[in-house]
Amino acid sequence: MSAPSVVTLLTDFGLADPYVGVMKGVILTLAPAVQLVDITHGVPPQDIATASVYLAASAPYFPDGTVHVAVVDPGVGGPRRAVAVETSRAWYVAPDNGLLSAVLADEDLVSVTDVTDSPVLPAARSSTFHGRDVFAPIAARLASGARPSDLGDPVPDLVITDAYTVQRDQRVLTGRVLFADHFGNLVTNVRREDVPESVGGVALRGHETWSIGPPVAYYAAVPDGAAMSIWNSFGLLEISIRGGSMADAVHWRPGATVEVSVEL
Amino acid sequence: MSAPSVVTLLTDFGLADPYVGVMKGVILTLAPAVQLVDITHGVPPQDIATASVYLAASAPYFPDGTVHVAVVDPGVGGPRRAVAVETSRAWYVAPDNGLLSAVLADEDLVSVTDVTDSPVLPAARSSTFHGRDVFAPIAARLASGARPSDLGDPVPDLVITDAYTVQRDQRVLTGRVLFADHFGNLVTNVRREDVPESVGGVALRGHETWSIGPPVAYYAAVPDGAAMSIWNSFGLLEISIRGGSMADAVHWRPGATVEVSVEL
Amino acid sequence: MSAPSVVTLLTDFGLADPYVGVMKGVILTLAPAVQLVDITHGVPPQDIATASVYLAASAPYFPDGTVHVAVVDPGVGGPRRAVAVETSRAWYVAPDNGLLSAVLADEDLVSVTDVTDSPVLPAARSSTFHGRDVFAPIAARLASGARPSDLGDPVPDLVITDAYTVQRDQRVLTGRVLFADHFGNLVTNVRREDVPESVGGVALRGHETWSIGPPVAYYAAVPDGAAMSIWNSFGLLEISIRGGSMADAVHWRPGATVEVSVEL
Repeated sequence: MSAPSVVTLLTDFGLADPYVGVMKGVILTLAPAVQLVDITHGVPPQDIATASVYLAASAPYFPDGTVHVAVVDPGVGGPRRAVAVETSRAWYVAPDNGLLSAVLADEDLVSVTDVTDSPVLPAARSSTFHGRDVFAPIAARLASGARPSDLGDPVPDLVITDAYTVQRDQRVLTGRVLFADHFGNLVTNVRREDVPESVGGVALRGHETWSIGPPVAYYAAVPDGAAMSIWNSFGLLEISIRGGSMADAVHWRPGATVEVSVEL
Repeated sequence: MSAPSVVTLLTDFGLADPYVGVMKGVILTLAPAVQLVDITHGVPPQDIATASVYLAASAPYFPDGTVHVAVVDPGVGGPRRAVAVETSRAWYVAPDNGLLSAVLADEDLVSVTDVTDSPVLPAARSSTFHGRDVFAPIAARLASGARPSDLGDPVPDLVITDAYTVQRDQRVLTGRVLFADHFGNLVTNVRREDVPESVGGVALRGHETWSIGPPVAYYAAVPDGAAMSIWNSFGLLEISIRGGSMADAVHWRPGATVEVSVEL
Repeated sequence: MSAPSVVTLLTDFGLADPYVGVMKGVILTLAPAVQLVDITHGVPPQDIATASVYLAASAPYFPDGTVHVAVVDPGVGGPRRAVAVETSRAWYVAPDNGLLSAVLADEDLVSVTDVTDSPVLPAARSSTFHGRDVFAPIAARLASGARPSDLGDPVPDLVITDAYTVQRDQRVLTGRVLFADHFGNLVTNVRREDVPESVGGVALRGHETWSIGPPVAYYAAVPDGAAMSIWNSFGLLEISIRGGSMADAVHWRPGATVEVSVEL
């Protein structure tokens, strides 16, 4: 038996409503043998930039050929396109609103297909739930072996924003906090690969300013209650309090501006 | 290989506790090859009416023959029955407390079987966790091809409540908010099919009164911050604030009474 | 077709971040046909004792031979060992920090293998996310049929703590609240098997003291709003308010000390 195709889902729908379950029902109706995996449905509502980084941090760990469905879609029902994107490694089905920017910083683009009005979709579609009516059925078709040309017309370009833009001024590199994880660690947009030299120190500027030492090797390397920086498992600079919540300490909330600067 | 049977789960158990995982363990022990899908476990605790609407909104999107297990069960351990219900489309396993009312407004009833003391269940059962000890094993048997007559005795009736009752007075139709979704949209019990005429306007009466225009075609049709009504993807009237939370604006909480009236 | 192997996951990662999804991607890359089940990812952050009880309460309901991956790991990246444990019933992959204590109170230990630096793992591993870099790949190997000797060296012992220690003084047995479930029921560490005699009454001592009758047979046996005790579905003494939240009533929060005493 060949391995079942994997279809992942990443949304800002939360898990309290039945929306994610409905998308899975649609996928299993069209592609009964796929393996479904939730990446997360806890993206802050309508936060495309965070979703983009979550997807890029996760996709490399799935089997080649996985179909990733990502729906953070404030423009649902409006003129934005729906796209199916093929890269050197996987498939992505998403609204064309910048959500795939971080993935495409890492993977080679092979094709972009406009599936907004795909001939494989029924004519009657809601204007509020394209996760069910557009993205799930397109993903199921790809998982069942459909080719892009079966699903729509090729298009040359895609909305790309840059999640990883940092400013460099002499020997200081300045980025920002992207999101807080469940443990209260603040994850920044400073990538290890953008900081070639050794780091003198790190500063966090939000509600107040914190001066923090250079990245340590692991969480338990500092005593309980100490602030610390670390290169996290996704290759991003992370600011933490050992055994506590840095997010609480700086009153982090989604949408806040918290700068991080790195002395090179 | 034939497609694996799908078993869905819908409960008010939340995901913080191990209860849902345990139900899946029971199902996989008896029916190892099924495809398990969570509809949601975020039903407000003991809110049978909301669970009923979630189930009816989700079930049509699953493959024919799916086994849906729904457990919102304030009377667990007491005299209420446990039932297995066959409709024209699918199987439902649930406490007999009205939970299947909304589904049975849409699907034709074929049979009801009392499985409270099913001969396929072990004699020793807890009085607090029938999700594990009754509903999961019955669902696994159905997914493995058991017939109703293997599981218990037929019964002629079922507890039915009406989630969709609205009042009509001249040219005003009055319903109520059923629940708020994760985005703060308020979902009402007014069905599109119950409002044949075009709509003049919508009013919401809770903490304060909001006058809102007739339903728009999609969320992005109004400017950010504007209140709006829309026929949602489940065919129900929904009241929203574009880019905001109508639930917060009216201080919604489960159990509150918020009326919606529609000028016909 | 033989049944797919089951791999369960239990962590304190929450579901808002992509960490759990990434672990599943790693497992499916190495073992494409497994059946993945979440026990829960809602363990209070770094609460090893609660995770231990959750795992022991869940594992008996899964098929024999299931591989359970449990990651609550405050010492990640430090000197603590990672282990693969074989019992008479199943496999466990976890940090060696006491997490398996409650399971090993119920199941016979067959072997313990140190997989911290397993030869099957890539040399480059993060210091912050061993869920992805150590525990998931080891679990996938076990689910694919690897033997312990393929994965590392046997070790004779394991960190064991005792979650179920209660004090007995004359005719009073004193334990403590382990956690509150989603309904606000307080679950204690008093096991039915440790209370052979009939119970005269139960008292709860936290913020204030509650005197509660002996365990009832099922929730609905008392009127709405009444405090009650009950032997729960995991065989532990549970303190509840019918239709309400005992956790709210005693201002429960993880880490609080709330004693329960049982008159024998």
